[in-house]
Amino acid sequence: MAKPTKITGVDIKDIRFPTSLGKHGSDAMHGDPDYSCGYVIISTDTGLQGHGLTFTLGRGTHIVCAAIKPLTRILLDWKLSAIYDDFAGFWREITNEQQLRWLGPEKGVMHLATAAIVNALWDLWAKIEGKPVWKLLVDMEPEKIISLIDFRYIEDALSKEEALEILRNNQAGKAEREKEIRTNGYPAYTTSAGWLGYSNDEIKQRLATAKANGFSRFKFKVGSDLQDDIRRLEIVRKELGPDTTIMVDANQKWGVDEAIEWMGHLVKYNLLWIEEPTSPDDVLGHAAIAKALEPYGCGVATGECCQNRVMFKQFLQAKGLQFCQIDSCRLGGVNEIIAVLLMAKKFNVPVCPHAGGVGLCEMVQHLSIFDYISISATLESRMTESADHLFEHFVNPVVMKNGCYTAPLAPGYSTELSPASIADYTYPEGNEWQRLFKEGEFVPLDVDEFHLKQ
Amino acid sequence: MAKPTKITGVDIKDIRFPTSLGKHGSDAMHGDPDYSCGYVIISTDTGLQGHGLTFTLGRGTHIVCAAIKPLTRILLDWKLSAIYDDFAGFWREITNEQQLRWLGPEKGVMHLATAAIVNALWDLWAKIEGKPVWKLLVDMEPEKIISLIDFRYIEDALSKEEALEILRNNQAGKAEREKEIRTNGYPAYTTSAGWLGYSNDEIKQRLATAKANGFSRFKFKVGSDLQDDIRRLEIVRKELGPDTTIMVDANQKWGVDEAIEWMGHLVKYNLLWIEEPTSPDDVLGHAAIAKALEPYGCGVATGECCQNRVMFKQFLQAKGLQFCQIDSCRLGGVNEIIAVLLMAKKFNVPVCPHAGGVGLCEMVQHLSIFDYISISATLESRMTESADHLFEHFVNPVVMKNGCYTAPLAPGYSTELSPASIADYTYPEGNEWQRLFKEGEFVPLDVDEFHLKQ
Repeated sequence: MAKPTKITGVDIKDIRFPTSLGKHGSDAMHGDPDYSCGYVIISTDTGLQGHGLTFTLGRGTHIVCAAIKPLTRILLDWKLSAIYDDFAGFWREITNEQQLRWLGPEKGVMHLATAAIVNALWDLWAKIEGKPVWKLLVDMEPEKIISLIDFRYIEDALSKEEALEILRNNQAGKAEREKEIRTNGYPAYTTSAGWLGYSNDEIKQRLATAKANGFSRFKFKVGSDLQDDIRRLEIVRKELGPDTTIMVDANQKWGVDEAIEWMGHLVKYNLLWIEEPTSPDDVLGHAAIAKALEPYGCGVATGECCQNRVMFKQFLQAKGLQFCQIDSCRLGGVNEIIAVLLMAKKFNVPVCPHAGGVGLCEMVQHLSIFDYISISATLESRMTESADHLFEHFVNPVVMKNGCYTAPLAPGYSTELSPASIADYTYPEGNEWQRLFKEGEFVPLDVDEFHLKQ
Repeated sequence: MAKPTKITGVDIKDIRFPTSLGKHGSDAMHGDPDYSCGYVIISTDTGLQGHGLTFTLGRGTHIVCAAIKPLTRILLDWKLSAIYDDFAGFWREITNEQQLRWLGPEKGVMHLATAAIVNALWDLWAKIEGKPVWKLLVDMEPEKIISLIDFRYIEDALSKEEALEILRNNQAGKAEREKEIRTNGYPAYTTSAGWLGYSNDEIKQRLATAKANGFSRFKFKVGSDLQDDIRRLEIVRKELGPDTTIMVDANQKWGVDEAIEWMGHLVKYNLLWIEEPTSPDDVLGHAAIAKALEPYGCGVATGECCQNRVMFKQFLQAKGLQFCQIDSCRLGGVNEIIAVLLMAKKFNVPVCPHAGGVGLCEMVQHLSIFDYISISATLESRMTESADHLFEHFVNPVVMKNGCYTAPLAPGYSTELSPASIADYTYPEGNEWQRLFKEGEFVPLDVDEFHLKQ
């Protein structure tokens, strides 16, 4: 098949899944998410398409879509080959448009929007090359990988030369590690028994199911009620024994001093990490918490709301995190993520990506596999978050096996939603949404037709 | 007149001024801004209105307006009196809506949107009380001021008790300082001679004009071309003599090491500060630059892109800034700004607000006057940025006198645009925009009707 030479169009879709109806995924800060995404389809002259998404929690997805729109104008100014020849240059332009950058820069809505477009470009590139994204990256020359990254603002922590050296040093064992991953997959952990509000019996049952599915590492939400956290960790340790790896996650609930005090009551349960103990912006606060918890062998993990490579750089410099939880959409797509993977390697911090929601598991499997084969070269202290919902909407869904992500083999970034799911869940006009509105299960809000009540 | 008891409606407007046609305000990162704003009008049952705005650079203002919309739903859930009785509670709710907070949290587009609403509420409150915002604040009891602030994530740097103590300690001299400000105004500085691209003759002429207008402190843009920076600072020092206060501003152009090296060539011009030397997110980078420049008596200033109180807290903790440049819209309105003013006081760092654009001068005059009378209690090393464009669009425009902001006396936050300006500059349907489109001076872009070119 001939390779596409130009982009012929870009579609932007607001796609939402009514997950709040099932009360999945409630934590100390987010009670009722509707896992959703801003979704981008890049069409080309051969008919080949790139599908990319950026994850959201429901309301406000149209804001992200509104932000994607003006960025597509920049996308259409570039020839397809020019983007892949100078991806860092393209990335600099899309993140630094002179008027739009005031709305970030490189953070929040604008950066989520950037991610949707950049993720779609990676899906397209991998499809052009007939490989999954992880394999496209693994086969890339170190110099080419370096050329993907905008090093502005991070060179004081990682020079191009250092980055290149990391990649070159790992060239030797790549084939072996690839073989290993193709056989065993990449290790994952689960939060399926860990959401707030489960009774002791539910926790036992869910742990049993997770173990039967091959999981050996488990995460639990904390931070809403100390006594309830203690109750749940008591039953968890009774069920799992003293040595099973467990982690806890406070979803930004605490101030710095509060985090240290609260965790003082929980560290006896032998916790690998406390995740998001405080504001995701508080590098120095995380460093203070990490220092206080170090004597108890409990590290600090954060990253799902860490806005860009400049913040990750500081978290690494200040020892504010011991586990680096990149998010495939919070950062500006694969290019910026590679910068963070390389910095984490230099600072000797394991990367354990954030996943769940919709589409995140699909993407992080590529990122973790590439990280292992080309950058970290170890699985020690590495594991990727997993969840098992909404897989069915994807053309190439995640396949878990023995608590591991199996290596995805289909060309692309695994981000393509099925046409039926797009038709059903586009908001608000999709079939399923119209049904929910009609049957009174959902009140239509937050769309362009939304009028203020008087 | 009876006081309003409830909000009856909220209007959101996308208002843009075609300033790029005049090439005002170009710097190392922003070539051709169209000073614009997301504009909010809160109507009440007595007809009294609050007008608030959040500043933008043109393109993307509709994204901010799209973000304001779902937040107004929260606004309408609150009774007016309940907001002013528990402003911190309202602020926490609007910045932490469970699904929308993923798009921030508390940063970028969502926080700019928050600012527009919160600023409108302050304009309304001050009009209800028949006072300018600065006077409303100056007359408030310390306990009431504390009740405006969401202390989450900052209590490790500033406790409520410490904040209260600062305010109480300053009660004594308030009347005297108010009298002084009503007589002399609040000192300002100007960038009118400092934009990139001016010839030696233009610089001389603009400095002469600025001096004739009473200015004695001047800021100059740097960072695009070292030799040109040297040329301009040479002529500036020749014109102004060795002792006049001058500052420079790089608008985020450099990496950390680059900033230190570049500034090594400029410090001999006796500079009070280098503003935005690198990424606004890089607390530790700013601290490294500040440390390197300290021997030369040159401080680091930043803040116009500092996203929230958590980042300002860290800049203060890490000595990453010696001049704190709050922005009246980047932060989530007056409430969060007061938190930063109090932290800056504790850390003994002068606050020199960012202004210019549209509406920023109008707001910062209130903030600086309140800061002086109730918090800092000194004018030492304090001055507020000023500019002289777009004042004519406001109902109560800024009045500069002898290089100072005169104290605004009209009730409100000085943020109300005239009906004629709203009619002319609403984008894209305003009269002036339609004329520009028709005459081919502007291509309509970035509106809902915008279609991708093929």
